Amino acid sequence: MSGPDQAPVRAWLTDLQARIVAALEAVDGGRFVADRWERQAGFGGLSCVLEGGRVIERAAVLFSDVSVEQLPPSASERRPELAGRSARAMGVSLVIHPRNPYAPTVHMNVRCFLAAATARGDDACWWFGGGMDLTPVYAFEEDVIGFHRQCKDALDPFGPDWHPQFKRWCDSYFFLPHRNEARGVGGVFFDDLNAPGFETSFAMTRAVGEAFIPAYAPILARRHDHPHGERERDFQLLRRGRYVEFNLIYDRGTIFGLKSGGRAESILCSMPAEARWRYDWQPEPGSPEARLFTDFLPARDWV
Amino acid sequence: MSGPDQAPVRAWLTDLQARIVAALEAVDGGRFVADRWERQAGFGGLSCVLEGGRVIERAAVLFSDVSVEQLPPSASERRPELAGRSARAMGVSLVIHPRNPYAPTVHMNVRCFLAAATARGDDACWWFGGGMDLTPVYAFEEDVIGFHRQCKDALDPFGPDWHPQFKRWCDSYFFLPHRNEARGVGGVFFDDLNAPGFETSFAMTRAVGEAFIPAYAPILARRHDHPHGERERDFQLLRRGRYVEFNLIYDRGTIFGLKSGGRAESILCSMPAEARWRYDWQPEPGSPEARLFTDFLPARDWV
Repeated sequence: MSGPDQAPVRAWLTDLQARIVAALEAVDGGRFVADRWERQAGFGGLSCVLEGGRVIERAAVLFSDVSVEQLPPSASERRPELAGRSARAMGVSLVIHPRNPYAPTVHMNVRCFLAAATARGDDACWWFGGGMDLTPVYAFEEDVIGFHRQCKDALDPFGPDWHPQFKRWCDSYFFLPHRNEARGVGGVFFDDLNAPGFETSFAMTRAVGEAFIPAYAPILARRHDHPHGERERDFQLLRRGRYVEFNLIYDRGTIFGLKSGGRAESILCSMPAEARWRYDWQPEPGSPEARLFTDFLPARDWV
Repeated sequence: MSGPDQAPVRAWLTDLQARIVAALEAVDGGRFVADRWERQAGFGGLSCVLEGGRVIERAAVLFSDVSVEQLPPSASERRPELAGRSARAMGVSLVIHPRNPYAPTVHMNVRCFLAAATARGDDACWWFGGGMDLTPVYAFEEDVIGFHRQCKDALDPFGPDWHPQFKRWCDSYFFLPHRNEARGVGGVFFDDLNAPGFETSFAMTRAVGEAFIPAYAPILARRHDHPHGERERDFQLLRRGRYVEFNLIYDRGTIFGLKSGGRAESILCSMPAEARWRYDWQPEPGSPEARLFTDFLPARDWV
């Protein structure tokens, strides 16, 4: 495929995946299972999954590099005109569901799309997307502020407007309209990034991806041994039910991935190991569970 | 709203709901919680929910009668031209998730839509829809055959072609393409029924609704005390994960209900109390778990 040199993007992505896997194994003590799969010669992915760990209940750190014969409309929210073009999509995507209800779930994704030139004269084009967001069950201000601080510090070197824009985008994307409720406390989310040019867009995406370990590792280290009991586990599983709802009903990557014949086991790695539903469950006003809804989920500026 | 007399439909639906609730309470020993809600004057619903019962882990038997200002495209699969018209939708919908892994989950729905006449001269129109389907974890031929037999016996008095048609419709509707796997062992499903006229269409819908208790109660009675352990519970929860996937990704009623501002707690009553996901889980060949995939899920003629 023509367009800018994609080898450095792929090299960075596979290296980032390896470093994240190593960092998580160091905290957990367990080992990820690496499952390499191939779609076409030279294209495919490496799914790294850890289940039933000491710290991590279920985590997946996925790399994929696939060539798509016909870009689905979901590939670019803002470029529906590209639908139908052949393309290459590379990315690292992860979701970590820790065992401890005081340790938040986290999601991170960095990706690069390249759409081929067409016979009717459209040029090849490319864009980057990505982001990370935190989904606590019992939340700590210190954790949420620290996470947002890392997101901001990653983007500020590229100009002061990016972080506020990507922060708002994250708040509006990870939202469950049917519950009028945020999935979590946000972070950053961006798509269709190409205006600053290939090198700068790649550098911004790298900055976000590189911020993941410093943003999340300290939180996991602080919270994975927090004392808890059945009550906290129960609330955690109810919140994981909401996570499932978001991913299966609204998440573009999940839905269009599944509907366009993507690898179901890799895509559904974002599901928690376990989730619960209970009719019309409401937290007791003033309880620690209620604080999630009153003090953390409503979007606000954390840094 | 003009059109055929809707009072008998509503009366039958509310009575059916009450009889199903009573039949389930008799088996379980527990009581449904009845939650009445109102949308507009005279319109609303009655959500009956039983959670944490002796036999039933989570069940919902819902009645609703809502007037819709603008019919969503999801209301009628085969009548997209009705989208945007004002309408009335009445129905009973239920999902029962028993505790015992040998007792199958079941779903039943009967509904009636009436679309108002329009200013540009379209006549008022109506149609019925419904069906029931069984989702076993550890399946028994006797149960599956008995369930399908009840579906067939309900429809055969109206002519020999209805049951095969509605049985195939059910097999194709309750299917997870991303797993190339049926949700369960099927039953019957129909929509847009009006060709036989109002009285006969209503009678067919009644026949399906009335078949529910004789189709399901004997299965629940036979299986709710079946001995089982952690292994069977685990497989049950993994299968419930698939049930969640179907309902949130593909079920028209669920998705468009949620996206069009329906009552989330009622719509999501179809979720199990608990579900699990595990990476690339496969049953051991020849095991009781494998038999579900080899002997029961592939669509076949059971009667």
